[in-house]
Amino acid sequence: MALCYRAEGANDALPAKNTEIITLKQLKDLRMIKHPKLTLIGAGPGDPELITLKGIRALATADVVLYDALISNELLKFASANAKKVFVGKRAGDHAYTQQQINDLIVDFAFHYGHVVRLKGGDPFVFGRGYEEIYHAESYNIQTEVIPGISSSIAVPELQKIPLTSRGVSESFWVITATNTKGELSGDIYKAARTDATVIVLMGTRKLAEIVKVYEAAGKRDWPVAVIQNGSLPGQKIAIGIMETILEVVEEKKVGGPAVIIIGEVVAEHPEFHRIREFYDYIHKL
Amino acid sequence: MALCYRAEGANDALPAKNTEIITLKQLKDLRMIKHPKLTLIGAGPGDPELITLKGIRALATADVVLYDALISNELLKFASANAKKVFVGKRAGDHAYTQQQINDLIVDFAFHYGHVVRLKGGDPFVFGRGYEEIYHAESYNIQTEVIPGISSSIAVPELQKIPLTSRGVSESFWVITATNTKGELSGDIYKAARTDATVIVLMGTRKLAEIVKVYEAAGKRDWPVAVIQNGSLPGQKIAIGIMETILEVVEEKKVGGPAVIIIGEVVAEHPEFHRIREFYDYIHKL
Repeated sequence: MALCYRAEGANDALPAKNTEIITLKQLKDLRMIKHPKLTLIGAGPGDPELITLKGIRALATADVVLYDALISNELLKFASANAKKVFVGKRAGDHAYTQQQINDLIVDFAFHYGHVVRLKGGDPFVFGRGYEEIYHAESYNIQTEVIPGISSSIAVPELQKIPLTSRGVSESFWVITATNTKGELSGDIYKAARTDATVIVLMGTRKLAEIVKVYEAAGKRDWPVAVIQNGSLPGQKIAIGIMETILEVVEEKKVGGPAVIIIGEVVAEHPEFHRIREFYDYIHKL
Repeated sequence: MALCYRAEGANDALPAKNTEIITLKQLKDLRMIKHPKLTLIGAGPGDPELITLKGIRALATADVVLYDALISNELLKFASANAKKVFVGKRAGDHAYTQQQINDLIVDFAFHYGHVVRLKGGDPFVFGRGYEEIYHAESYNIQTEVIPGISSSIAVPELQKIPLTSRGVSESFWVITATNTKGELSGDIYKAARTDATVIVLMGTRKLAEIVKVYEAAGKRDWPVAVIQNGSLPGQKIAIGIMETILEVVEEKKVGGPAVIIIGEVVAEHPEFHRIREFYDYIHKL
């Protein structure tokens, strides 16, 4: 007996004899077509144990996983062995797919295979363009869900035990991407340099010399700053100094990108900074 | 045969005959004394599945769990049945313990029972005074570790699919606690109102009327704003409007504290805001 799918409300000619009419719901139940769904998951800053329980459970039901560069292989093991795993990773200057292609892939895979999990580093809504993927999928009526991830903006200083705010020192923190859409230093960094907010700059290692100039122009040569590469991973590297010296320390410690830059008095809480402060206090007494 | 503990480097008289000298390391191995340790864990914004895998694994090895208000009972189940579970919760106006008492409890429990897990809502380093607990414990030479949590500052808007930044709209986000240590509105809110940064205010529901005045004074009467209570939980409530109307919407929707306030053009991405914009566009054409 053949099966015939008839959309609700359709009023076509009767199907041939011996053909059973089946609804979309029944087709889905028979797993003959998959329910299209997109789940955007934040994978955290690098340590694979920093994914959430909710993220792991969603990964386990994925039919397709689209994952970025910097995603640990350990995380892919939470997906079923039958799930397709597609690398769509982006690193500076090495784009496997454009954002538009990724958006299209999501829609395509969702209609063909069902549950698409998009696994992104950090948190998908912090400079991650994750919302573009959500809105694009929703424009095709695909059900979407977002599962937040640990953002490196908060976790990377935290794992170094640098607080983001500290009573009497800083009442807020300001997270800024180093470059605007034109590739220039973000105008917000100029504004941030004139406040007491703790400033966290993401994707900023190549702009560090420019950032130092902005802070020096704001009269903050001696402002504490830390640059942390591979935060949460075994290969973590950290450079700590003041604005005036940080470029030298970064070079000496061979700290490269991608890294998180933390600027503000809270950085002085790091034990390594105590020695720096003692040195400057000594110099100033001479 | 009696056991005698002798500290390294100690040079006391010989112990009595038939007494074996044992080192601190051996005592620990015998579990006769516990290795004191503090692990600070971020429990996330409320949904118990938003804890990290690393957090769950640490909870499972806790001898004592000190937990805040707003911590789900589901999370305490990850700890062993034998672990002591102590509520030290703080809500506005209902402090079971002062911060100093919590700091002291941590040290006391760590020396008596071993591994103390301190379970805090959100992320422990975002306005959580977690760093004070870490530094206090370290001053007693207790080993410490921080396991980041999902911060409501990022996750609560995200779960409403409100991006924190959006290309061409906002290049940064600024997270501010509503009140300074004197209980006044934070000075950073005045500065933030004069930027294009997305602003996220925590612990600010009681200060909402003041925040509205600051934005109106900055010429931003029509700036989009959302107030979200119980983000990530089944009882989630949201009020969306513009500065001029948000107090009415909050009252109408009965949104109370604690809540997350999100201010900026990105809020206009929320589907509920589209209707508000259409309404104002219509009004302005009249």
